[in-house]
Amino acid sequence: MTNPLRVGIIGVGTMGADHAERLAHRIAGAELVAVSDPDTARAEQLAARFEGVRSIADPLHLVAADDIDAVLIASPGFVHEEQVLACLEHGRYTLCEKPLTMDSESSLRLVEAEQKGGRPLVQVGFMRRFDPDYVRLKAMVDSGDLGRMLLLHNIHRNKSVPDPSFRSEMIVRDSLVHEVDVARFLFGEEITEITVLSPAPTRAAQPGVVDPQVAVFRMEGGGLVTTEVFVNSQVGYEVRCEAVAERGTVTVGQNGGGLSTTRLSGDGAAGPGLWGGVVPGDYRERFAAAYDLEVQAWVDASRRGEVVGPTAWDGYAATAVCQAGMESLHTGEPVRVDLADRTALPGTG
Amino acid sequence: MTNPLRVGIIGVGTMGADHAERLAHRIAGAELVAVSDPDTARAEQLAARFEGVRSIADPLHLVAADDIDAVLIASPGFVHEEQVLACLEHGRYTLCEKPLTMDSESSLRLVEAEQKGGRPLVQVGFMRRFDPDYVRLKAMVDSGDLGRMLLLHNIHRNKSVPDPSFRSEMIVRDSLVHEVDVARFLFGEEITEITVLSPAPTRAAQPGVVDPQVAVFRMEGGGLVTTEVFVNSQVGYEVRCEAVAERGTVTVGQNGGGLSTTRLSGDGAAGPGLWGGVVPGDYRERFAAAYDLEVQAWVDASRRGEVVGPTAWDGYAATAVCQAGMESLHTGEPVRVDLADRTALPGTG
Amino acid sequence: MTNPLRVGIIGVGTMGADHAERLAHRIAGAELVAVSDPDTARAEQLAARFEGVRSIADPLHLVAADDIDAVLIASPGFVHEEQVLACLEHGRYTLCEKPLTMDSESSLRLVEAEQKGGRPLVQVGFMRRFDPDYVRLKAMVDSGDLGRMLLLHNIHRNKSVPDPSFRSEMIVRDSLVHEVDVARFLFGEEITEITVLSPAPTRAAQPGVVDPQVAVFRMEGGGLVTTEVFVNSQVGYEVRCEAVAERGTVTVGQNGGGLSTTRLSGDGAAGPGLWGGVVPGDYRERFAAAYDLEVQAWVDASRRGEVVGPTAWDGYAATAVCQAGMESLHTGEPVRVDLADRTALPGTG
Amino acid sequence: MTNPLRVGIIGVGTMGADHAERLAHRIAGAELVAVSDPDTARAEQLAARFEGVRSIADPLHLVAADDIDAVLIASPGFVHEEQVLACLEHGRYTLCEKPLTMDSESSLRLVEAEQKGGRPLVQVGFMRRFDPDYVRLKAMVDSGDLGRMLLLHNIHRNKSVPDPSFRSEMIVRDSLVHEVDVARFLFGEEITEITVLSPAPTRAAQPGVVDPQVAVFRMEGGGLVTTEVFVNSQVGYEVRCEAVAERGTVTVGQNGGGLSTTRLSGDGAAGPGLWGGVVPGDYRERFAAAYDLEVQAWVDASRRGEVVGPTAWDGYAATAVCQAGMESLHTGEPVRVDLADRTALPGTG
Ligand SMILES: [Mg+2]
Ligand SMILES: [Mg+2]
Ligand SMILES: [Mg+2]
Ligand SMILES: [Mg+2]
Repeated sequence: MTNPLRVGIIGVGTMGADHAERLAHRIAGAELVAVSDPDTARAEQLAARFEGVRSIADPLHLVAADDIDAVLIASPGFVHEEQVLACLEHGRYTLCEKPLTMDSESSLRLVEAEQKGGRPLVQVGFMRRFDPDYVRLKAMVDSGDLGRMLLLHNIHRNKSVPDPSFRSEMIVRDSLVHEVDVARFLFGEEITEITVLSPAPTRAAQPGVVDPQVAVFRMEGGGLVTTEVFVNSQVGYEVRCEAVAERGTVTVGQNGGGLSTTRLSGDGAAGPGLWGGVVPGDYRERFAAAYDLEVQAWVDASRRGEVVGPTAWDGYAATAVCQAGMESLHTGEPVRVDLADRTALPGTG
Repeated sequence: MTNPLRVGIIGVGTMGADHAERLAHRIAGAELVAVSDPDTARAEQLAARFEGVRSIADPLHLVAADDIDAVLIASPGFVHEEQVLACLEHGRYTLCEKPLTMDSESSLRLVEAEQKGGRPLVQVGFMRRFDPDYVRLKAMVDSGDLGRMLLLHNIHRNKSVPDPSFRSEMIVRDSLVHEVDVARFLFGEEITEITVLSPAPTRAAQPGVVDPQVAVFRMEGGGLVTTEVFVNSQVGYEVRCEAVAERGTVTVGQNGGGLSTTRLSGDGAAGPGLWGGVVPGDYRERFAAAYDLEVQAWVDASRRGEVVGPTAWDGYAATAVCQAGMESLHTGEPVRVDLADRTALPGTG
Repeated sequence: MTNPLRVGIIGVGTMGADHAERLAHRIAGAELVAVSDPDTARAEQLAARFEGVRSIADPLHLVAADDIDAVLIASPGFVHEEQVLACLEHGRYTLCEKPLTMDSESSLRLVEAEQKGGRPLVQVGFMRRFDPDYVRLKAMVDSGDLGRMLLLHNIHRNKSVPDPSFRSEMIVRDSLVHEVDVARFLFGEEITEITVLSPAPTRAAQPGVVDPQVAVFRMEGGGLVTTEVFVNSQVGYEVRCEAVAERGTVTVGQNGGGLSTTRLSGDGAAGPGLWGGVVPGDYRERFAAAYDLEVQAWVDASRRGEVVGPTAWDGYAATAVCQAGMESLHTGEPVRVDLADRTALPGTG
Repeated sequence: MTNPLRVGIIGVGTMGADHAERLAHRIAGAELVAVSDPDTARAEQLAARFEGVRSIADPLHLVAADDIDAVLIASPGFVHEEQVLACLEHGRYTLCEKPLTMDSESSLRLVEAEQKGGRPLVQVGFMRRFDPDYVRLKAMVDSGDLGRMLLLHNIHRNKSVPDPSFRSEMIVRDSLVHEVDVARFLFGEEITEITVLSPAPTRAAQPGVVDPQVAVFRMEGGGLVTTEVFVNSQVGYEVRCEAVAERGTVTVGQNGGGLSTTRLSGDGAAGPGLWGGVVPGDYRERFAAAYDLEVQAWVDASRRGEVVGPTAWDGYAATAVCQAGMESLHTGEPVRVDLADRTALPGTG
């Protein structure tokens, strides 16, 4: 396909609106075409913010529309089954936010329906698999350098859950589900047993809600996974994951971010163990995101007829300082930097 | 402009080729139209990798082409003046990699030429200004919470410089120039004096090359900046920046990445000082990049007619585990997870 | 007691010999008087290394000796009961390495015997309670600032266990026992239930040994504790402890050491959560250990008739540099430092 | 010398009183005998806190006293010359707090006087040389693994200086002096040139005081040292030191403490660079301080006729939990822990 992918979004609450913004302004090769929401006013307002996007009241009409190649489903879980089935019928590429459906029977029906269709169409929104740190952790585990993975320890904390209808089960279905996927993804195996333990709850949780919870999974191959889920931690959003393997560990989400490891030194078990991480090899690795953001900002500003970011004056001033610096390099003495009179150049940014 | 920005790239060495990839596959609202390079074979090869991109031998012809809105200049610095001037004449939005030109006189000519044109067109490629951590550091400094900025300490290390024609001055002009811009950006002031000190060099540098170097800048308002530049550190690419203000410090680029601070506690100077950082408020903040990468991967795969990422089976398995987890939540006992027979569903991803 | 405490050590394997060194050279107010070990040659060798220390073949004779005030028991656990009982009979202050005894019945007999004696004499060697970071963690938990403690997550890893007679139970009794004490210490409650889970073991463990293990404790008040114990991690000795409370967490033993927290900012739950730690208030706090080590090194050297550490020449050179620095402070110019000719002062250290 | 070293302290302000406490309660092999201070009431109060310590009004009488082997000088710098000279005359081992004297001429006189006496007696109080992290940094630099040291970057921050008589020069003489010694210690060379730069000062400093300051040293062998000294940082006491060598760096004093490095991997420059540190090899390394503190607490409590720390009950409870844990290890099931009735054992700690 050389044309952009024409995308419709079903459900434009927080997550769906966020995805609309993303598709319109940060994703290459996509065109946002239509949105749908039971709250039609909300859908129309959102559509109006983007050029050429229309609102369609019935989500199944959106799925069926002629100018739709792909559907992003960000509606509540209990309508997912019907909507994904419609997508499968119309051959739409589908990105469905988690959970796929509300119970395993309906999820299995979708698996079978897709299989009957003869070609894969559905992606489920487990976004940790795309987080650069989880991707690197997965690569380290799969490389075999650390030996077989034995244990996985997860922490998953949310600041608070203000919803008065919140129930303990939702911690399992809406929060723990991410670590369920992480465990399956990293081990590359199914989970065969789950235990969910109930400590005495925090007073910050609503009465009757079990929060935090501690879950233990057993994997097919004998691995064990522990997960703390705590949705009223008060502090903020913390997601941490430590994979424990036979010759070292890898951790995502330490405070401050990034990836850290413990492992053997180059001398093997005879030498001291090391903790830490890898220094980027070059500027393209370190500043990969910065380059993308720089060029996106330039493209966006140019389309608006503007210039943002460092100006020609900034380029001039930097050159003048470096020129003085090269002189100082030879003498070791301080060198004054004399710039042109900027007030005589009123238009410079 | 509702149409995509039509972009040409001049210079398709490492950096220019990287930008071509970026514009084609990661940037929204842009269309890569043409590339130019003195090595015409290289330009043609690159053009052939992208649909609808042509190679133009003469960079000034690329600038003048009817279907070009904007030009990204990634050629060597000594041809920048001529190329930027051409861009200004043709009214092209221009992103020029650093250095703007080779000396301050020619840079000033560009500033004046742009000013005569009556509207800003030039952005210079100081990408640190777009790095999310530098952006947050700038915001913290500008918020005034830490008081006035007093000092800035930079570290800028490269693994090695294999080029046999490399000279000491290039450390100033091509490496230190980034910290020149960072100092001006963060202080919001010009640099009035520069000293470049020459320690005894590393044996890893080529004979005669002064490496590392230590530069000291004085800012207009009296601030001081120290910068280590070391282009043969052997270890990797390290860029660190610590802003020291009246009531705390902010650092970018500690090992492991992220931003860290020292500052007063809520109790003011009477209480203990704190070091550390801010916990993300929610999942959209923590996983912002993951969501972009997830949706980009979905769009890319859909355009190829494929599905990557978590499949319907992954959604089904996660739902089945969570269903068992909700049962265990009530009993506190382990619950077995029994999945459908996957071998009976041969097409599932 | 104004005289030094006269101490005997029973058992002079690795740990006992380490304690002998400690008592002789690093502890104020103690005098090592005697040692005892079934390997009498080893005991005599050790005794000979310290002035005035004798070896006593029978440990019960050591306990009974007239010039013994206190006994440090570092023998194997299966002889602890008899030795501690002897200490109680003779009214000796006793520091007994863990485990107190090999089963709970014998331990209870010691508790009852001490109680009958009418005064406390026994301390058990759970040294984590004296680690400065655990002490600070305990103080933070007890301060109530973080609310009630809900969960505790421990990691306890050893590099390897070379002993061919090693069995899975020893992971519980000799390693996990430390986290048993930590849980009781931090919660200030008893443990009411324990589960020890057996993942598929590492190939670095001896056949039949379950390693790693994951233990779950329930506390009297409803708190939950998870602990990974892994005695063949290959990497090194890692001990980590994260206390999760209602308004924040505290962690000991992150890589690099020290204490770190997540918690609410001064603005309460409305503000962003913070991670990090406390900056020392002054030099006495930061360099507390350095001062002790400095003075101990000075005392030790003086007793040997030597001087170690910075010499008068070091003091002179530093003063000369600072004098030049004060001159430079006024001019901003570099000032040369001219020292006396050290070759004319041959004796200077 | 098999008897304890008999020590007198001159000057019992903050630092001297701290040293008295240290000598009395934390240092092996020393006996505090006398103290002296111009404020005789303060000296007498301090002496009264320790058994067998007397106050001597004239510091030179203290030096001359028959029962004094060694003198710790914690008086103001301007009386050091006279006091150290007296110590040299009487052959006293001397630990003199920095600065050795107020100017280089008088310091040199002490060097010469000590040399004439024919044996070394003076140690100067540069305590960073005894900080375990500086010691490890020095060892890493001296090992040669990182190649030759090229640069040193120091940060030295104090919270505030309340003294109204404080002057800019005191930052050089009393604070920077520590980094002067660190530079000489780590390079093992003299400093040949110093520049002290004056940025615009913080508003938290008293009017006229230059704070922060940035100093640059040149070493004999061509190395360069940068040091920030900032005595009104408001935040706390921060001391950081980064040694930059040909194949890596070592840093002391990152937030959270400990030592961290960047360096080549075992594969040499071909492989990725690593950041991080070394995992302790065993419990004696990780808990070295804890063991010392445990045994010191036991000795102190025993001398008072008390027991502190984990009691026999703690030993019993831990044994009971582990016994249940060993049962659970075999079944994988939770096992209840049933302790004896503690209320029937009223005396248990
Ligand atoms: Mg998602
Ligand atoms: Mg750039
Ligand atoms: Mg112990
Ligand atoms: Mg000192």
